[in-house]
Amino acid sequence: MFNNNPIGMLDTGVGGLTVLKEALKQLPNETFYYLGDTERCPYGPRPVKQIKEFTWDMVNYLVDKGVKMIVIACNTATAVALEDIRKELTIPVVGVIYPGARAAIKSTKNNRVGVIGTIGTINSEQYELAINTKSLKTDVFGLACPKFVPVVESMEYHSPIAKKVVHNTLKPLKEKNVDTLVLGCTHYPLLREFIQSEMGEDVILIDSGAETVSDVSMLLDYYNISAEPTNETRTHQFYMTGSKRMFEEILNDWLTVEKYGIHRVSITKGNE
Amino acid sequence: MFNNNPIGMLDTGVGGLTVLKEALKQLPNETFYYLGDTERCPYGPRPVKQIKEFTWDMVNYLVDKGVKMIVIACNTATAVALEDIRKELTIPVVGVIYPGARAAIKSTKNNRVGVIGTIGTINSEQYELAINTKSLKTDVFGLACPKFVPVVESMEYHSPIAKKVVHNTLKPLKEKNVDTLVLGCTHYPLLREFIQSEMGEDVILIDSGAETVSDVSMLLDYYNISAEPTNETRTHQFYMTGSKRMFEEILNDWLTVEKYGIHRVSITKGNE
Repeated sequence: MFNNNPIGMLDTGVGGLTVLKEALKQLPNETFYYLGDTERCPYGPRPVKQIKEFTWDMVNYLVDKGVKMIVIACNTATAVALEDIRKELTIPVVGVIYPGARAAIKSTKNNRVGVIGTIGTINSEQYELAINTKSLKTDVFGLACPKFVPVVESMEYHSPIAKKVVHNTLKPLKEKNVDTLVLGCTHYPLLREFIQSEMGEDVILIDSGAETVSDVSMLLDYYNISAEPTNETRTHQFYMTGSKRMFEEILNDWLTVEKYGIHRVSITKGNE
Repeated sequence: MFNNNPIGMLDTGVGGLTVLKEALKQLPNETFYYLGDTERCPYGPRPVKQIKEFTWDMVNYLVDKGVKMIVIACNTATAVALEDIRKELTIPVVGVIYPGARAAIKSTKNNRVGVIGTIGTINSEQYELAINTKSLKTDVFGLACPKFVPVVESMEYHSPIAKKVVHNTLKPLKEKNVDTLVLGCTHYPLLREFIQSEMGEDVILIDSGAETVSDVSMLLDYYNISAEPTNETRTHQFYMTGSKRMFEEILNDWLTVEKYGIHRVSITKGNE
């Protein structure tokens, strides 16, 4: 009844680490294989067809490693490819949009919800769809923030530059009077403080990645594939297509992982 | 991509109404068919074989009505029959134990969790199993409260009798120093005030039924079977095997349902 295979988690870069952080807290028995396509990040501004193709590269890489579940810890990839991937694979596949949408409906009192994300995510209108499927009376205001991911991936997320970018980008959203704002990109929690101070303390920020971990936990139960309980620390693996050093710096700045391996890999077919 | 079929919810009696209340709030677009086996309630003290048989009677009745999902809004039936039912049916089946267990792990800080439930639920040790599968370091203290369900089903849950029963029953749990208590029976939220005051204001009460609604909402997304968004009020149906009058009294005392039908039915084969 137990399944000790790892859970595969993928993102275009380091953003999915915000999901992993929550996963390590809620699911201490599980082993995670994290894949970041840092070499080709960001996906946000790319054409839909290419985002699908790149996402499949990541999914196939993790499936070959024997993962028992796939967590698409990236809003852009979820918006564009989740349905396809879910249809093709026999293992459970979890995305980050529906959990964030559900949390937003639960949170809002004035039925005005903001969503910030990449161009790909915002143009897909998947959050509007997910929210309005559950609640027609909720108005959704989407805003693309194309500068946020590069700021995070270049390790600038604590800097005054980040603060200025956040300030300039969020301006059009401030007059919408939203009481809830979905961080519709897993990179954005790294900019949380700046976003919160820009939007005001009363606005509730929904971390779509953290919400996703509840779905992962639920599906482990639903399919009866939790890992065997242990007092030992699991060894997690990190795979990335770009620089190992940069990735490891953000990893150690953002979360504590006791035992791990880190590997630079190629994920396009025939290249490993 | 929408599915307007009703969601079937079952309980031995009126307890599942605490789950329905939360479901109506979070899922305003959905139609619910609620079945309470009030005639044969309580199930808690019955032998396992009989609980299984009775639960199947309820499930089959709802499946024949064309429901798209089954919510076993009863801890006793979940503990004894969930796995079997999930294996047999092709529609999703949700129980109340795992959601409650997950919420308890999230809530506890001192890793001491109490669980109260019927004799059947406590003897099954399903909460211990569900909690320890996720977190070995959490100690679980179970206590059977066989008098609670009869007090609720007889409409005594606001009375001094209820207060006294709660006081006397919970005594052995008070010395365990738990910081979180799972209401491991969907009838117990109706006794919530007495339970809270008996355990002390610092103890966090987990309503396993309310937590279950998050799973229902998640599975509607996961299987893409949400009902079509509407501004109209849905008409819900209530079926019970015992007195209609008693059921309706508790229904109207506990929640507001604008449009509904109410029917006394027989759920054993060939008797309808």
